[in-house]
Parts: sequence; C-alpha cells; structure tokens
Amino acid sequence: MPRWKPDAAERLETAALELFGEQGFERTTIAEIAARAGLTQRTFFNHFADKREVLFRMGADLQRAIVTEIGAGSDDLPALDAVVRAMGVVADEMLEVRRDTAKRRYSVIAANQELLERELGKNAALTEAIADALHSRGCDPESAFITAAAAMLAQQTALRTWTRPGETRTLRDLLQQAVRALRTTVGTS
Amino acid sequence: MPRWKPDAAERLETAALELFGEQGFERTTIAEIAARAGLTQRTFFNHFADKREVLFRMGADLQRAIVTEIGAGSDDLPALDAVVRAMGVVADEMLEVRRDTAKRRYSVIAANQELLERELGKNAALTEAIADALHSRGCDPESAFITAAAAMLAQQTALRTWTRPGETRTLRDLLQQAVRALRTTVGTS
Repeated sequence: MPRWKPDAAERLETAALELFGEQGFERTTIAEIAARAGLTQRTFFNHFADKREVLFRMGADLQRAIVTEIGAGSDDLPALDAVVRAMGVVADEMLEVRRDTAKRRYSVIAANQELLERELGKNAALTEAIADALHSRGCDPESAFITAAAAMLAQQTALRTWTRPGETRTLRDLLQQAVRALRTTVGTS
Repeated sequence: MPRWKPDAAERLETAALELFGEQGFERTTIAEIAARAGLTQRTFFNHFADKREVLFRMGADLQRAIVTEIGAGSDDLPALDAVVRAMGVVADEMLEVRRDTAKRRYSVIAANQELLERELGKNAALTEAIADALHSRGCDPESAFITAAAAMLAQQTALRTWTRPGETRTLRDLLQQAVRALRTTVGTS
C-alpha cells in the first residue's frame, strides 16, 4: 500500500506537463505520467478521471475563489471593478507562483483543438458563475453577464501577456493594464 | 443520378435541426437527416463531413463577410465602431432572415457540451480573424485583439437576446444596444 501522498496531484500535473511538452498530449499515456511522478496508476485515478483533467485541475478552485472574493468585496465598487479586484486577489494568491506551470499548460492546450475548446467551455462556465455572483450583489442579469464577460476578456488578455516568454510583470498588474486598454477601446465613440 | 439540388445544404440543415430538436443530436443519424430532406446520404456527404458540421455551415461565410465588410468600411471610424458596423451589415444581409433557424440551432448546441465547446472554438477563430482585419487597418496587435473580443462580446450578448422567445428587435439593433451596455459597464471607473 502506498503511503498517502499529500502532493500527488501536483506531482502528477508536473509529470504530465513535462511529458505532454516532450512527446505531445495524444501520445502520452497515464502509465507514463504515473511512472514519471513515481506514483501508481491507481493514485492517478484517485485524483483525475482522465489525462485531460490534469490540465484543468485548478479550474474549480479558481472559480470558487473568485466567486467568494466577489462576495467578500465592498458593495461600493462598480461591478466591473469588483470582479477585477477579486481576480487580482486570486491571481496573487493562487496563480503568481504557477507562472511556469501556466506557460507549459497553455502551450499544450494551444496545440490541440479539443483541449482549446474544453478550455473555452470552462471559461464560459466561469463567466456564468461570475455573472451569478454579480446578480447576487444586485446587478440585473443582462448587466451581470456583460460585466462578467468584460472581466473575462481582460483576464484572457492579461493571461496571454503573462505567459509570454520573458514577461515579468505580475498577472494582477497585467489585469489592470488590460482593463485600461478595454476602457480605451470601448470608450471611443 | 440525382439532379443537382441548388438548395440541398439548406434542406439538409432544416431537416437536421428538426430531427435534433425532436430526438436529440446524439440519437439522430445521417441516414435520417438525408431521408427527411428527401435526399441521398451521398448528397449529404457532398455538403458536410459529418452531422456536427451541419450546425456550423454558415460560420466560414459569416467570417468572410465580416472581415470583408471591415475592410470596406471608412478608415475614420474608431476600431470598435468599424467592427460593429460590419457585424450589423452582415446581420442584416445574412442573419435576419434566419432567426428561426438560429433559435433552433442554439437550443441544440446549448444541450450538448461538445457542440458548445465547438461553437466557442469557432467564435475564438472569428475573434482572431477580426483582430487580423483590424491589424491590417493599422491597429497594434494588442488593441486589435481587445477590440475584436469586445465586439464579439457585444455580438454574443445580442445573439442571446435575439434568439429569445418573443423577441422582435433586429440583431443589428440589439448589437447597438449591447455596445451601449458594454460602454456603460466598462466606462464606470
């Protein structure tokens, strides 16, 4: 019986990203991922339903953290600022230490249409969850959706820059910059 | 030998949407679609690679039309207005007559995660194509991407409303309304 491995999910993620980068997502087996991580396939299946899910392990935690942080923020902030503030807090707490992992993850996803579509589906679900959180704060449903989608647009823009080779600014700073760029773009009338 | 059927793709689309609505996307076969349309399976495969593609038949034409229309517009318009103008022209020319088809299409897609992800992937490709068209007009790549994504956000918001039961406003009008809502959301600072 293997002992309980508190860091098993993270070790499996690191091993999977290495292998996906070396030999491609399609050609990598779960047996190889488990072996590279020094764990059993059984441990793999204790953490993930399939090899695709390794790439999306943070999604549910991130969504929960952002929604919680929106609820915890001041009611005085305009809706978009409330979401961007929450995203910034979560970026500092959960993402900044993971920049290298995020870079490797994005290059795997970008190379595979099915993974890309899955990522877009997860983003759409996060948009809906943020819209629901804004609706709970008193936003009407239409404004809540547009605001959530605008915040996600800023976040996606910031993530594109943050994962670029040589980029050193924090995700939180890049998020602020993306919001300013969005205001410039949308403000012209 | 069947005669040439100028409206075969449209007849197959109508038949497919009826069947997807009646019995679900997964349970519908290509043989059933062809039979309902009064055509052969061979004719089906002359037009579509698989049954999923029936749902995306307009995508390439819409993308081409929007990109062309952006290129044809006045250079004086701000980038976002240039894209929204192009989307409005294309909505009038290609989409307004298809509202019932669009409604049925959206309800099929919304019920199937794989189709939803495919739709999001097609939207992401359209965003990139619009960003490229703006870049050709002289936008820097970052502004071009944000502007394209903002325009797509407005279009998605408008499409959600346009396909709602009982809605009678045109897609072009709803697009203008979504841009105003986006300006309100993003303008608050």
